[in-house]
Amino acid sequence: MNRGKIICVGLGPGDPELMSVKADRLLRSARHVAYFRKRGHPGKARSLVNGMLHAEVTEYPMEYPLTTEIAHDDPRYIAQLSDFYLDWQARLTELTRSEDVIVLCEGDPFLYGSFMHLYVRLRQAGQVPVEVLAGIPGMVGCWHATGIPITWGDDVLSVLPATLPDAPLREHMARSDALVIMKVGRHLGRIRALLAQQGKLDQGWLVINGTMADQQVMPLRDAPERCPYFSIVIVHGQGRRPANDM
Amino acid sequence: MNRGKIICVGLGPGDPELMSVKADRLLRSARHVAYFRKRGHPGKARSLVNGMLHAEVTEYPMEYPLTTEIAHDDPRYIAQLSDFYLDWQARLTELTRSEDVIVLCEGDPFLYGSFMHLYVRLRQAGQVPVEVLAGIPGMVGCWHATGIPITWGDDVLSVLPATLPDAPLREHMARSDALVIMKVGRHLGRIRALLAQQGKLDQGWLVINGTMADQQVMPLRDAPERCPYFSIVIVHGQGRRPANDM
Ligand SMILES: C[S@@+](CC[C@H](N)C(=O)[O-])C[C@H]1O[C@@H](n2cnc3c(N)ncnc32)[C@H](O)[C@@H]1O
Ligand SMILES: C[S@@+](CC[C@H](N)C(=O)[O-])C[C@H]1O[C@@H](n2cnc3c(N)ncnc32)[C@H](O)[C@@H]1O
Repeated sequence: MNRGKIICVGLGPGDPELMSVKADRLLRSARHVAYFRKRGHPGKARSLVNGMLHAEVTEYPMEYPLTTEIAHDDPRYIAQLSDFYLDWQARLTELTRSEDVIVLCEGDPFLYGSFMHLYVRLRQAGQVPVEVLAGIPGMVGCWHATGIPITWGDDVLSVLPATLPDAPLREHMARSDALVIMKVGRHLGRIRALLAQQGKLDQGWLVINGTMADQQVMPLRDAPERCPYFSIVIVHGQGRRPANDM
Repeated sequence: MNRGKIICVGLGPGDPELMSVKADRLLRSARHVAYFRKRGHPGKARSLVNGMLHAEVTEYPMEYPLTTEIAHDDPRYIAQLSDFYLDWQARLTELTRSEDVIVLCEGDPFLYGSFMHLYVRLRQAGQVPVEVLAGIPGMVGCWHATGIPITWGDDVLSVLPATLPDAPLREHMARSDALVIMKVGRHLGRIRALLAQQGKLDQGWLVINGTMADQQVMPLRDAPERCPYFSIVIVHGQGRRPANDM
């Protein structure tokens, strides 16, 4: 086993005050910091720790292979992505021969996090200790941004990726009391139409960059046509209210 | 408006290292600290801040009315509970004439939290500013306790209160990829049977007191007959793994 370890740190939804005590300490003393980003972009995770890193830190931007020419489900793209993860698995493992490496992750790393793909490979190879530090998920920051509780009593909450086909989205929208819809981005129009079909459009909220300096919160019916990738749609549960539950 | 404010602080799943930087600071400097508890019990939220509070803090245990004789859905009990919230609404409002009051809440306050019942009343009365600080939900601490990511790619995650009847539990168990079942306690046997019917018993995990000093994690099939109130059942999503998703 290597002497150093890899620690993936959940950064929470964006506000640095919402990072855990442990994340804050690990980040401020980190010597090696890695993070995923798209080529040509600063990287959301990296931007969340602006001003927190040590002056002598070494940074490792892990840049996804370019996807402009090939579809995400094309076998060639899948092979490229697999090589990309293998490559970073090898590089991070090499670094931890002597020192710890911190990997940054927005929200909570185990909830649709990119690091999970490295995590399963690193765990399987077994050459380096890997730790993952829980963070406040982006969705939690987003429901706080609305100022309204998300679930009461017996409410069911479903978390839906907007990238799903219509049919399962419709099913879960109909059956669940509270909804969190992630990865909204270019799917916003479709999500609105599906919620409207379920009579839930007027209960929907859109939160863009929740808890960050440029947060925007609005009723879904007032939303613009497009929204950035860091957007979540929320429908709050109504539950058994308010005295009827502990 | 009163000069002081009420701040409900999400304490996270239990490990004090997982509290937010802001929660940690507010707790250590608090002068008035309130928390819910059952009569005769120390209170889970209070126990999570052991050793963190100032020596001169004043504590306000908000003790639920006794429920041994009356069922939770009995109108008499609902009336009692309503009086209880009204009473504490008045007492906390009085306290904030001059100073801030911190209310403790396990996990995230807006996810099935008791404080929400006071929150809606306080907001409606409008006499005192109320803030709510997000925390890492207990379920996030619990999926980290298993060491396995909860959702990948297009996985749907549903959060189900074990207090629901069989029919909706069965529906959501069948349709969702990842499951978090809260408030398990005396429903453990029923939850096991329902998951077994869906062919999901072998994928289930039981986490008791996740991230606390006395945490227990086990495959659901090895679980004892009974478990305490602070228990969560988890079924992880399998998603589109591992290279096939960013
Ligand atoms: C690949 S998922 C990663 C989720 C992350 N691990 C978490 O726990 O929030 C990316 C999606 O998270 C959502 N998201 C995360 N943080 C957010 C925030 N602060 N505001 C709005 N959306 C956010 C967006 O829907 C985005 O498309
Ligand atoms: C009334 S709900 C409150 C949930 C809390 N607001 C949260 O965000 O986790 C209480 C339930 O939360 C779950 N729970 C919360 N924290 C937990 C932990 N650390 N370990 C196990 N279960 C936990 C249990 O299922 C318990 O019955």
